[in-house]
Amino acid sequence: MTDNSATFDIAGYGHYPVNHQPLSIETGPDSLRLTWDDGHESEFHYLWLRDNCPCPGCVSTLTREQMFEICDVPLSIRPLEAQLDGGYLHIQWDHDGHVSRFHPGWLRSHCYSEQARAARQWQPEIWDKATIETSLPTYDYTAMMQDDTVLLSWLRQLRDTGISLLQNTDTTPGTLQQVAARISFIRETNFGTLFDVRAKPDANSAAYTNLRLPLHTDLPTRELQPGLQFLHCLNNDATGGESILVDGFRIAQHMREQYPDDFEALSSLPMDFYNKDRHSDYRFRGPALVLDGQGTVIEVRFANFLRGPLDVPADQVVRHYRAYRTFISLTREPRFQFEYRLVPGDLLVFDNRRVLHARQAFDLQQGHRHLQGCYVDRDELLSRIRVLERTL
Amino acid sequence: MTDNSATFDIAGYGHYPVNHQPLSIETGPDSLRLTWDDGHESEFHYLWLRDNCPCPGCVSTLTREQMFEICDVPLSIRPLEAQLDGGYLHIQWDHDGHVSRFHPGWLRSHCYSEQARAARQWQPEIWDKATIETSLPTYDYTAMMQDDTVLLSWLRQLRDTGISLLQNTDTTPGTLQQVAARISFIRETNFGTLFDVRAKPDANSAAYTNLRLPLHTDLPTRELQPGLQFLHCLNNDATGGESILVDGFRIAQHMREQYPDDFEALSSLPMDFYNKDRHSDYRFRGPALVLDGQGTVIEVRFANFLRGPLDVPADQVVRHYRAYRTFISLTREPRFQFEYRLVPGDLLVFDNRRVLHARQAFDLQQGHRHLQGCYVDRDELLSRIRVLERTL
Repeated sequence: MTDNSATFDIAGYGHYPVNHQPLSIETGPDSLRLTWDDGHESEFHYLWLRDNCPCPGCVSTLTREQMFEICDVPLSIRPLEAQLDGGYLHIQWDHDGHVSRFHPGWLRSHCYSEQARAARQWQPEIWDKATIETSLPTYDYTAMMQDDTVLLSWLRQLRDTGISLLQNTDTTPGTLQQVAARISFIRETNFGTLFDVRAKPDANSAAYTNLRLPLHTDLPTRELQPGLQFLHCLNNDATGGESILVDGFRIAQHMREQYPDDFEALSSLPMDFYNKDRHSDYRFRGPALVLDGQGTVIEVRFANFLRGPLDVPADQVVRHYRAYRTFISLTREPRFQFEYRLVPGDLLVFDNRRVLHARQAFDLQQGHRHLQGCYVDRDELLSRIRVLERTL
Repeated sequence: MTDNSATFDIAGYGHYPVNHQPLSIETGPDSLRLTWDDGHESEFHYLWLRDNCPCPGCVSTLTREQMFEICDVPLSIRPLEAQLDGGYLHIQWDHDGHVSRFHPGWLRSHCYSEQARAARQWQPEIWDKATIETSLPTYDYTAMMQDDTVLLSWLRQLRDTGISLLQNTDTTPGTLQQVAARISFIRETNFGTLFDVRAKPDANSAAYTNLRLPLHTDLPTRELQPGLQFLHCLNNDATGGESILVDGFRIAQHMREQYPDDFEALSSLPMDFYNKDRHSDYRFRGPALVLDGQGTVIEVRFANFLRGPLDVPADQVVRHYRAYRTFISLTREPRFQFEYRLVPGDLLVFDNRRVLHARQAFDLQQGHRHLQGCYVDRDELLSRIRVLERTL
């Protein structure tokens, strides 16, 4: 693959294969329209093109950061001349004669037609008990550690399905450090970098008891809930303690279809989440279901035991409780629950901002249960995927 | 102060002084109304009260986390009996005879009347050049390190004003570790835990050159922009390199008043922020101005040099650029700019999600400039304030 970046055609480290050629340009008052060899049309505004000029005068060749600022040219900027040459779009600007040159692969990748924007929209792979039991994404620890292709496949799977199992993981305590380093940094929290999940005296969280833990996301009390959660099984011969996982996106989808007002309430009314600790007092206020600009559910925030008193307008209190009860009731339905018993060497990884997890109570008279856990944020995952995609 | 928590009156570690007593109860179909000795009225819904029962059967006495789940009682739950006794509200529930007892200070603190909710709304102290030059919050390093009262005052100031200067700070490299530990953890990023701001070869960010840096927030490429930014001056005898700070909330306020459509565009249309690095590829898509549910601006996300190509519907492109240019132009106006030259021992701390910062170019022929920096997230700040407030 050509290193586009060396020619300063592109303001970054990405690679943009040229799969199509622009054939013609039609200029309008504030934008031009390219027609491509497959019939696709792209409208590019003059302000947008000028803003994205990749030349060494506009973009630092050292840092690849833009030095040009769009407020230094008139709003009315337009081409003196616009032409195609060897697939490149060349423009000379009326304002000061500056010349910009755009790579065809880059242009096509950044087309913002309705069709192109829709094609770029990420779609999660939503699951329930039946689908995940037959298709739990499973990877081998050693293969993932040694082979970047396996790593990339694992990370993409985590991004899209939100769950995966690494098997045959080294059971040395602290192994999670090496696993996390395949992605990036561990997200440190008040529970530490690595945390040990086992029953202990003076527990500051139900996680550190042997009690049943109802379905929840971890740390909904934090503005940014931790993204990936890693649970590494070192020992599990106690009776009980099975893990239960539910795709929160599936619950949200079901609510949207069957209980639209409840869905609307949980995605618009804020909840208050409080941590309960002698040494910290994190609080966050926000809806249980988070939507992006297109209305897609991108996050679920939910732990019954980490809530503060509801603080919404009085006329919304009953509506909120109705919706919240619907949500909890659905998470309890077996058709949505994936139950799994971790064995030593299993490393379960899931998107903590999507997948709710629970644990059955366990009996310490009958053995031990020791997991190690850590978190890695979602944007570390996405960054790593992009960097791997540049080179593989 | 009484330790309420020991009596399990309150499900947490907070203290709730009793400044008012409830005088009477009026019960309705799904809520009751308390009238207090100052005439204030509080409506509490039955579901809300049952959900907040602090008894040891509902809340773990070990972890202070709620074990009760609201979907285990009927939506129609209501009191068999509700009465006041020694200021406490006692309720016996119709569903199963469960008894709940509510502390008057706690109840009053959690009243969700319109008036009480408005009084709890946080209001930033907004500044511009004239106001901050006469009232830059300034603290002494040693006093802050040794005295929790000074620490709390400093942290509240940071929360509300978004800027402060610590003077006479030890100029030993790494001192920031101790300062950050007064609050909580350092937020690690791809630039490290502590980062050294000085010109260096093969810079992966304009920060590490001697170039002018236009006004920006750091790491708008990350889903959670770092909250507090610390800039600790170890050495600054180069010519130039003055720091410039602008209250982004002031710019947003001005835009809202003078350019309402531009304000609306920047607070609703997403921008794309890309980091430009050989080893990481963080991207974030979101508006430059972030509003909370009440329409208050709570965050500004802005770095011209860390943007990716705009990706909005074609009919919004020119509108977006118009708004974005207005924003940049306003940040360049001297009336909003606070210029400050750091001297060794100065530690400038500001809310990176609010205050834009810039640096003039500097000339290394004439001396050296070496700052150390780090980040601490906003919710670490707020947690520390709450914990200090419990005890001071």
